[in-house]
Amino acid sequence: MADSRTELNQLGEFGLIERIRAKNKTRRAETLKSIGDDAAVLHPQGREVVTSTDMLVEGIHFDLSYTPLQHLGYKAVAVNVSDIAAMNAFPVQITVSIAVSNRFSLEAIDMLYDGIYAACDAYNIDLVGGDTTASTSGLIISVTVIGLTEKDKISFRSGAKPGDAICVTGDLGAAFLGLQVLLREKVTYKANPDHQPDLTEYEYLIEKQLKPEGRTDFIHELAEFGVVPSAMIDISDGLASELLHICKESGVGAAIYEKQIPIHDTTMLVSEEFNISATTCALNGGEDYELLFTLPVEEFEKIKHLPHITPIGIIREKSEGVVMVTSTNEAITLRAQGWNHFNG
Amino acid sequence: MADSRTELNQLGEFGLIERIRAKNKTRRAETLKSIGDDAAVLHPQGREVVTSTDMLVEGIHFDLSYTPLQHLGYKAVAVNVSDIAAMNAFPVQITVSIAVSNRFSLEAIDMLYDGIYAACDAYNIDLVGGDTTASTSGLIISVTVIGLTEKDKISFRSGAKPGDAICVTGDLGAAFLGLQVLLREKVTYKANPDHQPDLTEYEYLIEKQLKPEGRTDFIHELAEFGVVPSAMIDISDGLASELLHICKESGVGAAIYEKQIPIHDTTMLVSEEFNISATTCALNGGEDYELLFTLPVEEFEKIKHLPHITPIGIIREKSEGVVMVTSTNEAITLRAQGWNHFNG
Repeated sequence: MADSRTELNQLGEFGLIERIRAKNKTRRAETLKSIGDDAAVLHPQGREVVTSTDMLVEGIHFDLSYTPLQHLGYKAVAVNVSDIAAMNAFPVQITVSIAVSNRFSLEAIDMLYDGIYAACDAYNIDLVGGDTTASTSGLIISVTVIGLTEKDKISFRSGAKPGDAICVTGDLGAAFLGLQVLLREKVTYKANPDHQPDLTEYEYLIEKQLKPEGRTDFIHELAEFGVVPSAMIDISDGLASELLHICKESGVGAAIYEKQIPIHDTTMLVSEEFNISATTCALNGGEDYELLFTLPVEEFEKIKHLPHITPIGIIREKSEGVVMVTSTNEAITLRAQGWNHFNG
Repeated sequence: MADSRTELNQLGEFGLIERIRAKNKTRRAETLKSIGDDAAVLHPQGREVVTSTDMLVEGIHFDLSYTPLQHLGYKAVAVNVSDIAAMNAFPVQITVSIAVSNRFSLEAIDMLYDGIYAACDAYNIDLVGGDTTASTSGLIISVTVIGLTEKDKISFRSGAKPGDAICVTGDLGAAFLGLQVLLREKVTYKANPDHQPDLTEYEYLIEKQLKPEGRTDFIHELAEFGVVPSAMIDISDGLASELLHICKESGVGAAIYEKQIPIHDTTMLVSEEFNISATTCALNGGEDYELLFTLPVEEFEKIKHLPHITPIGIIREKSEGVVMVTSTNEAITLRAQGWNHFNG
């Protein structure tokens, strides 16, 4: 059976909004008004409101030749949820705006929103608004997320103190290698479209790239054990860049230990295959969406039993710089690589 | 002196964010944290939080051949402020995300943000976050606005009751005609680049198109006189479409009177020049960003002295339909035209 294709101009903007609204559900008691008015309304119940926003552009942030639209929708929400988690807050609502060229059918937009709805289910958040428009080329997705927390629970980037332990959730470097695998497969496919790739051994890496998760699970654990990180940030641009952000905003230095950086076995194996050091993937790869945080050692004691937390170093005086002590016991100064999308 | 041009990749994303952050200021006591962390923080002080978002795409919503970048930045904020005003709420914070192709210099982005900062000044709101990224073609701007109000002050689209007066702020149809003037000038300029247009007589219309204002001034007046509209919406797609939204959400009908629709003298004159009825411009033109609202007649009495308020009709039972009584006393059923960006 051939896939059916419905053009977006058969529905028009109001039709598309009605379709999105009809499939959407409200989960949160805080949501007083969702899609359907000039604005959404949130009842914050005395809590502080945290907001973050991210824009994903086709050809810059994602490549639809290897990114399923459902995964893209899910990821667009997850990366925003991750920013709210990095404030030690809980996400409550999102707005989603999309610009789409007429290359996209209604069925394609449905798939994108299926991923968005799945993420709303997974994170227990409400889609409360947005905008739908045409674009002259490609797909652009802009998500804004609203979260809630209490004033004395917020973890800014600026609160790290000398002597604090530096920790990360999960493992690092996998998402970057997942992207390398997908890019290699794309080249192989172009050369030979009949090629049937077996990606089983890369599954962990590809999933970390295509379907990352915001670590709200860890925010629940912090609340459970009564711990508030002195500083926290999510790892979107790589460990080095994020640690430098914390050190700059907190006015401190830091030492992390290469052998302490959590690397998944698959990441280690595949980094050798690609001839890149796994440490480089962790430091500069980005898109892991794990959390990097600092806290006094006595606070660390309360959560050190959690299996997915790894201490990787210590905050020091600013004058001591920001260094990584390598496996061969050399101290190298960390530099941010980040991404410069404006190149080329 | 030649204009200097700085490429965005000379700064990189972090450099651009630092530049935006350095010029930005915080005005509101509610803003606990602005640009510079994973998320912004708002202290709502017991009030309800309203959110709206709009995306503006080059080639769909604006044409830089006749839109100065400062005006575009201002308008991107104003149209979002307008949505918050339409809830009878006050805007407090915005986030702005932009995707730009390398056609744009740093100086161009500075001009865009100058307009954004000017709007923040005009509306007393804080720019608290956003995203900056590259695009493969053109400029895309996504603005999310956050406002505050009290629960019993919110005007939804759904509260209109039979017998309520229907009113609008300002005058209608001007922004649409302003666009027609600009489009005509563009064609003239292409045919003869030496042509020096004299647009003095069209100034009012062009300003309504290029630099519309969100009517927060009227929201302050409503608060002053203790009036809460039973329903309210901002006129972005034309009076007909917005009145139909209110009637649909409220489950009512309506009658408006053509001769009551406020039309500016310039709009009347230029509509004749373009051979379009001024009423059509008001009903289907869009982008006026005035407010359409309903309220019981005794409430209307409290604000009827305000010079920029015009009563244009009355809410009726649903079974009576949604009609406009023309100047020749015919009742015609209103239909939404709206925009269908997905065409062509």
